[in-house]
Amino acid sequence: MAFTVLVKDAHSLARVGRLKTRSGSVETPVFMPVATKTAVKHISPEMLEEMGAQATISNSFVLSLRPGAKIVKKVGGIHTLSTYTGVMFTDSGGFQMYSPSLYKGSNDLGVEFKNPYSGERIFMTPEQNMQLQLDLGSDVAMCFDTMPLIEHSKDAVALAVNRTSSWARRCKETHDTLQKKVSKGKRQLLFGIVQGGVHDDLRRISAGALTELDFDGFAIGGLALGEAKEEEYRMIEVCQEYLPRNKPVYLMGAGNPIELLEAIERGCDIFDSRFPTMNARHGNIFSWKGKYIVTNAEHKASLKPLDESCDCSVCKRYSRAYVCHLIRNEEGVGYQLASYHNLYFLQELMRRVRKAIKVGTFGKFKKTFIKNYSKK
Amino acid sequence: MAFTVLVKDAHSLARVGRLKTRSGSVETPVFMPVATKTAVKHISPEMLEEMGAQATISNSFVLSLRPGAKIVKKVGGIHTLSTYTGVMFTDSGGFQMYSPSLYKGSNDLGVEFKNPYSGERIFMTPEQNMQLQLDLGSDVAMCFDTMPLIEHSKDAVALAVNRTSSWARRCKETHDTLQKKVSKGKRQLLFGIVQGGVHDDLRRISAGALTELDFDGFAIGGLALGEAKEEEYRMIEVCQEYLPRNKPVYLMGAGNPIELLEAIERGCDIFDSRFPTMNARHGNIFSWKGKYIVTNAEHKASLKPLDESCDCSVCKRYSRAYVCHLIRNEEGVGYQLASYHNLYFLQELMRRVRKAIKVGTFGKFKKTFIKNYSKK
Repeated sequence: MAFTVLVKDAHSLARVGRLKTRSGSVETPVFMPVATKTAVKHISPEMLEEMGAQATISNSFVLSLRPGAKIVKKVGGIHTLSTYTGVMFTDSGGFQMYSPSLYKGSNDLGVEFKNPYSGERIFMTPEQNMQLQLDLGSDVAMCFDTMPLIEHSKDAVALAVNRTSSWARRCKETHDTLQKKVSKGKRQLLFGIVQGGVHDDLRRISAGALTELDFDGFAIGGLALGEAKEEEYRMIEVCQEYLPRNKPVYLMGAGNPIELLEAIERGCDIFDSRFPTMNARHGNIFSWKGKYIVTNAEHKASLKPLDESCDCSVCKRYSRAYVCHLIRNEEGVGYQLASYHNLYFLQELMRRVRKAIKVGTFGKFKKTFIKNYSKK
Repeated sequence: MAFTVLVKDAHSLARVGRLKTRSGSVETPVFMPVATKTAVKHISPEMLEEMGAQATISNSFVLSLRPGAKIVKKVGGIHTLSTYTGVMFTDSGGFQMYSPSLYKGSNDLGVEFKNPYSGERIFMTPEQNMQLQLDLGSDVAMCFDTMPLIEHSKDAVALAVNRTSSWARRCKETHDTLQKKVSKGKRQLLFGIVQGGVHDDLRRISAGALTELDFDGFAIGGLALGEAKEEEYRMIEVCQEYLPRNKPVYLMGAGNPIELLEAIERGCDIFDSRFPTMNARHGNIFSWKGKYIVTNAEHKASLKPLDESCDCSVCKRYSRAYVCHLIRNEEGVGYQLASYHNLYFLQELMRRVRKAIKVGTFGKFKKTFIKNYSKK
């Protein structure tokens, strides 16, 4: 079993666990910076290691376009390519169905994409996607899914759920076959993805179908997309009724600090999101006293660090005035400093969460954090 | 005297010197990365310190637009703003006469600019520019000059030379007056700038006029702009006939490795250029075996470092394949890694040059370097 629950919170589903992969272990709850093309925007692999980021997630479909699976395989996989020493997840690329420049259409067999560089049509089946993610050499692969958007009709979501379930089975079978000869410790893990929009019954159907398959972990997809927070939290609860408690649960796309705590309380272990880096590039800074906009005029001459109670290397050295000036001028260093801080903030939040769960104070920790964070 | 010649080469004008400023000393020959807005593109101040960059140059006019001299003065100057611990030069902004979006016109009194953010007209006199550079708190200020372009008529260049000489006198007087009460060790240094295009006689007139004033150093401006290398080197030689040998000579805008060695041989001590970082962003990599394009297909799967004989932190860790992939995808981390390497390369080149001059092997060093660098 790749996942071990180490400590359970007495008052909620929160827990500390360990996910063992062929490239090392991560302690959960864990937040993964998004490294679509194997690099986080403006943050180098050694910066990720320095801030204690245990894992990242890259996008297999995007990488298949550039530099291409052949090149990545030739150099020895995404670990060798990027030199990042943490655990590397890859997403399937199902999400790219929402890039109008990439997506052409889909049927029960798979998805048709357009290569934006060559114009070439690419038909991607779940089977091919499993081969791709193995070629890329990630430690954890995600099933090739069909993600509905919240504005889709319930019928469309139901269709997506059916297709996701059928593709999950095909992914699992292919993935098992492809790794038959790989020794257990060297095997890539595979997570299934539950869909179903904000519909309790569809989430139940999806989670029920997925859990029939012996995945190494289960992801909850199609949330954190703009639906009401209460709906998101309820969907997590509905899914958790079905998901096995001895497997890690990965809430995809969530990166708001409060959202992470609510999801952890509801038994989620793994997270990823562009939220911290995208916010950083727009001058939105996470702090223990709440989020604020460093490019606002009030910070122009402020020699305070981004967050007075943060001990990241950016807060130790740089001022709000400098970050404000650089981001207003669209300077790469400004994006780098703000992104580093925001990512560090989430890493530190996860460290404190794990500690709180271990010492039995998670509930109190969450309450205090949210109180302070919601002040602004 | 701010400048001390430490070692002279026996066979050329090359020398090792020390320029003492209020923020510390730099050993020359020195190459300054360009930090227009107090940050080098994609390279943070601590990266500059790590690679051994002793000084940077920022642009006073650009900084006066954003964040504005008032803000910079309020936080305590560009050192406090950026936290960079090296020596900071500021350029006047005369160069911005060639930004059509900024430049409106000029007369004997000064230059009219347009603030691109507010639309406001700004009339900048040499006197105001001296106050500005003092307010910004740089260690070395440059005179407010009028730089002709190589395509300008000789008459236009002659006019620019006259104006530059007259403005240099006004700059010097204002600068002296403004610092009357400042103790000697705390004073900002001021360099004059020689213009004259590629005309021997005009360079002579300009250098002659400038050296009548007791500047802390002399810059050769208006070169490295696309003229033939032979013309550039001849202009340096013409200027050097007039410039005092006990003052540092700063060749503005030069950043090609061979150009630096030729200029050092002709007695130049200080350099700055966007060349290494701009090249890096286009995938052009400096190496001891010559410049090459890392985004070329041949490097797509190469696990070699950017330069096999370089010991910078990028070459120690990353491959050509990764840098190729990231720059092809316009990823900030790719620009960061390539810029770091190219800047480190020039810092290392200057370290080796200083060492060669000290041990009396500069001529041999230069010959060997150029031979290896010109192979490709």
